Amino acid sequence: MLPGLTRGIPVCEVMEGSQVEKIDNASMHILENIGVLFRDPIALEDWKRAGAKVEGEMVYLDRGLVRELISTIPSDFTYHARNPANNVRLGGRHSVFVPMTGAPYLDDVRRNPMLEDLAMFHKLSHMMPALHSSAHHIVEPYDHPISQRHLRITYSSMKHSDKMFMGMTTSAKNAEDVMDMCAILFGEDFMETHPVTTGNCNGNSPLVWDEVMLGAMRAFCRRNQPVLCSPFVLGGANTPASVPATVAQLNAEALSALAYTQVIRKGTPAIYGHYLSTVSMKSGAPMAGTPEISLMNFMIGQMARHYNLPWRTSSHLGGAKTFDAQSGYESATTMSAVLHSGANYIWHSAGWNEAGMHCSVAKFVVDAEQCAMAYRMAEGPRWGDFDQALAAIPDVGPGGHYLGHPHTLENFQKAYFMPELFDNNSVEQWQAEGALDTTKRALNHARRLLSEYQEPKLDEAKDEALRDYIARREQEIPAADELNQSY
Amino acid sequence: MLPGLTRGIPVCEVMEGSQVEKIDNASMHILENIGVLFRDPIALEDWKRAGAKVEGEMVYLDRGLVRELISTIPSDFTYHARNPANNVRLGGRHSVFVPMTGAPYLDDVRRNPMLEDLAMFHKLSHMMPALHSSAHHIVEPYDHPISQRHLRITYSSMKHSDKMFMGMTTSAKNAEDVMDMCAILFGEDFMETHPVTTGNCNGNSPLVWDEVMLGAMRAFCRRNQPVLCSPFVLGGANTPASVPATVAQLNAEALSALAYTQVIRKGTPAIYGHYLSTVSMKSGAPMAGTPEISLMNFMIGQMARHYNLPWRTSSHLGGAKTFDAQSGYESATTMSAVLHSGANYIWHSAGWNEAGMHCSVAKFVVDAEQCAMAYRMAEGPRWGDFDQALAAIPDVGPGGHYLGHPHTLENFQKAYFMPELFDNNSVEQWQAEGALDTTKRALNHARRLLSEYQEPKLDEAKDEALRDYIARREQEIPAADELNQSY
Repeated sequence: MLPGLTRGIPVCEVMEGSQVEKIDNASMHILENIGVLFRDPIALEDWKRAGAKVEGEMVYLDRGLVRELISTIPSDFTYHARNPANNVRLGGRHSVFVPMTGAPYLDDVRRNPMLEDLAMFHKLSHMMPALHSSAHHIVEPYDHPISQRHLRITYSSMKHSDKMFMGMTTSAKNAEDVMDMCAILFGEDFMETHPVTTGNCNGNSPLVWDEVMLGAMRAFCRRNQPVLCSPFVLGGANTPASVPATVAQLNAEALSALAYTQVIRKGTPAIYGHYLSTVSMKSGAPMAGTPEISLMNFMIGQMARHYNLPWRTSSHLGGAKTFDAQSGYESATTMSAVLHSGANYIWHSAGWNEAGMHCSVAKFVVDAEQCAMAYRMAEGPRWGDFDQALAAIPDVGPGGHYLGHPHTLENFQKAYFMPELFDNNSVEQWQAEGALDTTKRALNHARRLLSEYQEPKLDEAKDEALRDYIARREQEIPAADELNQSY
Repeated sequence: MLPGLTRGIPVCEVMEGSQVEKIDNASMHILENIGVLFRDPIALEDWKRAGAKVEGEMVYLDRGLVRELISTIPSDFTYHARNPANNVRLGGRHSVFVPMTGAPYLDDVRRNPMLEDLAMFHKLSHMMPALHSSAHHIVEPYDHPISQRHLRITYSSMKHSDKMFMGMTTSAKNAEDVMDMCAILFGEDFMETHPVTTGNCNGNSPLVWDEVMLGAMRAFCRRNQPVLCSPFVLGGANTPASVPATVAQLNAEALSALAYTQVIRKGTPAIYGHYLSTVSMKSGAPMAGTPEISLMNFMIGQMARHYNLPWRTSSHLGGAKTFDAQSGYESATTMSAVLHSGANYIWHSAGWNEAGMHCSVAKFVVDAEQCAMAYRMAEGPRWGDFDQALAAIPDVGPGGHYLGHPHTLENFQKAYFMPELFDNNSVEQWQAEGALDTTKRALNHARRLLSEYQEPKLDEAKDEALRDYIARREQEIPAADELNQSY
């Protein structure tokens, strides 16, 4: 695995200081005067105790209270993986790439995935060097009852990779199970002082947080584990038809949840998040790779830095139905905006297609290689051997070539990235090798990787304890087969 | 046509001031001590008269002389099209998108293009709003003798579009013909004070300029028409295996040609250029969309701004053999780097595939739409209706939606870009519409556009004069059919 990315290129800041203040002011005005719906009795009680004005389910947050609460969120922390060599830092210049999650279908053939498919993606996540996490339910495993699924998903993340992973937040109780399993793997005490996983809590934009997400948030925050506070923004549908006004609303939503994490437990790590698309007014469909998504990423990055908070975005998004040219343009455009925006937790970085409806195996490995290229770009230029490289110029002289020069032979591999999955050969060579398009080449690559996979063995006692825990919980939780049909 | 782009987002500067000085110093050291080969007797005489040290074909340029010469290049100027509504500014924050040129094949079927195919691309260039130029030989027209081809190419650019166009530089004499044809279209005197076309002069890296290119350069500069001074860089093959050292060499090469434009004619406009790829050390093939190409674009942009010069780069490049996902990733990655680098003359923006070996019709229209999206992004956020948009938030309230709100209805079209060529519908809708991939949708779009094409008529007297000129020159120039076979 590549170490966590430390960015060496500057961030793209499209707002002046006064515009950052404008957004901040607009968001605070929303929190103070329009309010945020917390549809959750425990949260409402918590907010009353914290000094917020609460009317019914509407919570009004004074800007002073918001600023005080978010001031205790760490701006920077280290995630601990079960293999300490895979620990990664998050915040400031430190970023990580995390695969996509939540796909109900595998590839563009509309097949429902199984636990074995999920294991395959966890293995690929383990093997691709620029992915820093095995995430959680990259695909939904349909061969297991939905009410118990979180247990098998978490175990699969833990077992098939020794990188960090994400924790399911599908209910408060499920989140508790994830925390208990993390405690088995890392130790209860260790978790009290070390982030070991990440939960995601989506908001319902505009300005609503629901009980399921807030319950899961409490489960994570109480155990000192970070959550992504993610307004779910469909620009134009659940936000105004304006980029700056959308950012102002999103920012208010994120701040309200971030502040709540500190009501739950002061000092717990939390991450400014969002899911962001703009909506086609022709069809209501979410779009990706649009200019406004790039601009909003730049602006949200500025807001997160204004509050000194680590932040999450999504990359390699797209709405293409197959892994075709559209998919490539959308994914690369999103990734590029994300890199220039200075995002820290770069989610959905591999596999996402069809607005998240399917995870493509071919795209998964191509995206993962793109992450390695993005990583290399975001590190910035390498000046270490500048003088030696310059010395090659008079050696070669006008009209010469560098291919045989000792400096070239020693340095070309680290000087210039050579993608394995992109074919740059002549058309004749490409035809001689079977005229394979990107999808076919990528599938071959994935098969090769999987044939070489070596399981990073779990400690036997911990493995047994995890399996015992799952067995016990599967006895306790009704299988709720009817839910399984309802996806 | 969209007006020329005025960038509203900041440039990505990956070098500190001291690093810019380091590159400048290394380049000047190359020019003073290693020298540049000018393989052209006229240029050597010109350089002697200008005070350079000349030994054989090697020219040594003192940094004082270089700085003095390039100081008279305008940092910013306006291109004049035959339709003044299509005039565009270049330099500083002002940028233009120009289609690809030079493809020996049409699409990925290996067919040699004809004049009619070239006309088709000139028509598409005319119709796509974010393309600011019809360029010149987007594809090589094989049905016409190579020695006379520049005449028909130039006429096609002039006739099928009233946007600006490029001028062929395939020889000094051919360039003179282009200048004469421009004089017919714009008037000799007008050209003396107004840029109306652009020539490209490639260098032979490392550190060589050839007679053909220098002859064409003289033809353009003497008539006050701008040339792109373009080192042709294959990173690692004809430059050192180091990003900063490659930039230092490229910068020296560009400066030597830029300085020469001012020896030819003091004050003539000229553009800092380059063609840039990195080379796969596995095959020697040029690559696109690599991290180092992005980094070099950022750095070259800094150098051009350091010298206060407009600059040219290439976007939407790629090495894919078909218009597949690889093509999309490579193109979008290159375009994004180019936007953040602040490039002015953004060439090869539509159609390029297979390292320039073919121009894809489908990709041409997709790329052109991507240019419109890039344009929108690079303008930066629009704050004009911020307060009105904010006012919609309390109207809608927590848990509501904005789809029917008057502000949304009035503003969604300008607030959020909706690509026509990317399908964001549900898979069911997409299947109902024929399950068309990006290529098929784009080809349908191109056919629709061409069926609606309206020729922007040339002034009849000028048209006749142009056709007379071509007829006369075709009598004078031997057809040289053997050359036509040798491509």
